[in-house]
Order: sequence, then structure tokens, then C-alpha cells
Amino acid sequence: MDKLFIIKIGGNVLDNSDALQFFLKEFAAVKSPKILIHGGGKIATKIGDQLGIESKYVNGRRITDAATLDVVTMVYGGLVNKQLVARLQDVGCNAMGFTGADGNLMRATKRPVKDIDYGFVGDIKSTGVNADLLTVLLKHGVVPVFAPLTHAEGSILNTNADTIASVLAVALSEYFDVRLIFCFEKKGVLRDVNDNDSVIRHLPKSLYDDLLKQNAFFDGILPKLENAYSAIQAGVKEVLIGEARDLVKNTGQQTDGTLITA
Amino acid sequence: MDKLFIIKIGGNVLDNSDALQFFLKEFAAVKSPKILIHGGGKIATKIGDQLGIESKYVNGRRITDAATLDVVTMVYGGLVNKQLVARLQDVGCNAMGFTGADGNLMRATKRPVKDIDYGFVGDIKSTGVNADLLTVLLKHGVVPVFAPLTHAEGSILNTNADTIASVLAVALSEYFDVRLIFCFEKKGVLRDVNDNDSVIRHLPKSLYDDLLKQNAFFDGILPKLENAYSAIQAGVKEVLIGEARDLVKNTGQQTDGTLITA
Repeated sequence: MDKLFIIKIGGNVLDNSDALQFFLKEFAAVKSPKILIHGGGKIATKIGDQLGIESKYVNGRRITDAATLDVVTMVYGGLVNKQLVARLQDVGCNAMGFTGADGNLMRATKRPVKDIDYGFVGDIKSTGVNADLLTVLLKHGVVPVFAPLTHAEGSILNTNADTIASVLAVALSEYFDVRLIFCFEKKGVLRDVNDNDSVIRHLPKSLYDDLLKQNAFFDGILPKLENAYSAIQAGVKEVLIGEARDLVKNTGQQTDGTLITA
Repeated sequence: MDKLFIIKIGGNVLDNSDALQFFLKEFAAVKSPKILIHGGGKIATKIGDQLGIESKYVNGRRITDAATLDVVTMVYGGLVNKQLVARLQDVGCNAMGFTGADGNLMRATKRPVKDIDYGFVGDIKSTGVNADLLTVLLKHGVVPVFAPLTHAEGSILNTNADTIASVLAVALSEYFDVRLIFCFEKKGVLRDVNDNDSVIRHLPKSLYDDLLKQNAFFDGILPKLENAYSAIQAGVKEVLIGEARDLVKNTGQQTDGTLITA
């Protein structure tokens, strides 16, 4: 099977124009088929504020009401997505920007109301991915760039970008050897949270289980690791956690970040 | 060759929610391959106003400065485009939303500064259309939905929706029998501008030339007719000018609007 890189970037890259320009050039240079998933960065909050739309929270959880949905649709699906696509085109990468509604690429279900009504938020499974059409696009050299938006029943839905990346990775593992790359603010999973040089380069499940027993992981990394191992269990070949600026190495054999495998 | 409908709608449909819902259902039901191009409607002006961005004009011509470009990228490329796509998906149409940057589908040149600096405005020719990739998408049942935005040199550019429709029609006439449909506020080209029942059903070039000599056309229609005949001259098989609500008839043999041919 061909290799496919599915790469997620968040606000720490999007909000830093130098870091972003560097990343986009490196991303464009990756030879294999690839998919980019971006979060929103600070711009959605800024534009929401300018439009007088308050961020709403219930029990610390963010709520997507109708006005907020319009803002994220505009900002994630329009401004951020199309600027990324135009800039990638300029560095020779045939990017095509998507929400999950486009081509029915990611059909979700609106999150059911239990204790909290999250509003227009989509939950997605790998069965909701239109892998056939994505595969056609990838075979034609198209580089999909996903905004963190899905759809159901005629409406766009706000969806977590990490979840979208994982779900795409699982769905496409039937067709490709997928390496799912989460770019975050550290070089990788660290043995010592204060030492950015203490990256665990390779973290197979056996080592993970050992380190877990020793309580060796810092708190913030645990949800990412659990997320990574559920992707691996669901058929994804490799998950990599590392810094955006190390993309070239992290798409190669000798990675700078943490390579997670079964 | 297969038939392809390229259909442009403007503010008079987008700004009327009943008319829009009716149109989307009719559009979804059109059997042949099809492409939708939408303008912006009033929402861009409204959101621009809310963000405190003034519309700028020089000699009556609208200028797209950097702030305005962000607004149209958000509103046309994000809000309007993605809402249309999500709603079309809900009525069984596999819509996929695009700007010209996506898949390099429409590469433009930034309008050169002569007497007026129009700002971030793109001029486009049929040679700037990625017809190969569009054809692949159409063959896979995808229904492209274009926002009135193109790109050049890493930037999104604001571009007239009628021009985009014409240029797409010309570029795709090599692969399809194209009928280019402009939806506007009247039933068609009228013999008597005050009588909506006086539609000229078929307007071949010979009749057009005769009527032109007689000064028989009302002023507002002339630019549309000139635009239509340049498309015909450039290889488009048919251009239709009519009302959005007559779409079913206007995609058939016996049209309600004005069918323009060579």
C-alpha cells in the first residue's frame, strides 16, 4: 500500500505567521499523498468578539449556538481554510479545501442532548467518511485541507480537529499505510516534561504500558496518547506526536518526535 | 458529448429563503452533470458593516481592499458556500464547494492598476480553468458549487460571479455540451420590458442582430446579451437567461426563459 500522511496543525502554528509559512513550505515538499487538518486559532474568537458574539460555556464546555456556528463556518471554513489553500497553491501544492459537507466527505451526527446541549456540534465515526471519493482525489494528486467542520441534516456542525484527523486516518487505513501526525508545542512525548531533549522516539504499546504503570507521563499528554492508541487499535499503522517545524524528519524514517506503533 | 448545466444564481435567490429552498430542491433534481455558481447576496455587506469595514468605491466602482477581501473570503467562501453545500447534501445532491484556489480550479491574474486600483480583484480567462480536474469530479458525480473567488500568487481574489460562470462554460465546452444558465429577476429577455409574458423564447444570433438594429432591447439586458454571445462565440452551445424558479423547464427542451444560440 502507498504511504499517506494525515497531519493536524493547531493554533500554535496558525497564529504564528513565520511558523506557518515555514510549515506550509515543508508540507508542500512532502512527496507522498497527504491530508492537512487545521484548527481555528485565535482568529475565530477575535472575529466573534468583533461581531458581538460571546463564547458560551456550560460547566466549562464550549457551546456552539447558531451565531457561533456562523462564525466558525465563516472563519474555519472560509477565511482560514481558503487562505491556507491559496498559500499552498503558491508553493506548488495542489491543495483543495473542505468541510465534511463537501462531497459528503464527513457525515456526522449532531451530538445528542444529555446533561449539556452542546448545540451545533458533530460527532463522527470512521463509517461517516466518504473514503472512496477521498481516494479518487488523492490518486489525482489533490491534497485535501480540512476545516474542523462536519455536517448532518442540512447543517454544518462544529467538530474537534483532532477527532477529524483520527477518524480520517482510521477510514483511510483500508487503502493506505497511514501515519497520523499531531503537531503540538513540544518535540514529542517527553520522559522529563521540563527537558525538551528527552523525547521518547519510539513508543510501542509494550513500553507505553510499562511507563503508564510507573506514572511516567505528564498529565497533558495522556489524552493524546489514549487517542493515538485507539487509532492504532482501529487499524492506523503509525501515529506521530511532535512539533510542526520538525515535519520533514517526522515524515521520514528517523523521526524527531514520538512514533507510536502497535 | 454529455450535457452539462452551468447555473449562476445571485442575490435575488440567495436573500430569499423560500425561493432558495425551492431552487435547491429543483437544482438537486436536475439529472445531468451540473455546476452551481453563487454570488454573495446582502449578507457580505451586513457582516462587513458589523465588522466596521466600509465598502469603498472609486468612480462608482467597488474596491476590494485587504479588509474587504477577508470579509468576502469568509462570507462567500465560508458561510454562503458551505451552507449551500450542506443544504444540497440534505436534498441528495453531492455538492462540493470551491473557490478558484481549491485544486487550482480557477487561476486568475490580479487586475493591473491603470486609472483605478481595484485591489484584490481577479481577472480570469478560460485558460486559467483546471478543466481536467473538474471533469474528473463531474464524472464521479460531484456537483461543484463555486463561490465568486479565484486566486493568484498565494492570495484569494474577488471575482465577478457572471464572469466565473462564463469562463467555466467556455473551458468545459471542450468536454461537454454546455448550457450556461443565468438566473435573474425576469422570466427571460422581454420584447416589452413591462410585460413579463413577452419572453423571446429563442434568440439565435440573426434575430439578435435584427432586434439590436431596431433598438428593441431594454438597457439592462444588453450587457447580459453581449456576455452570452461572447460565450457562444467561444464555443458554448447554449446560454439561457431566465428566472431561478423556472429551472426545471429551463433545463429541458421547451424553455420558459430565453435560449440563446449561435
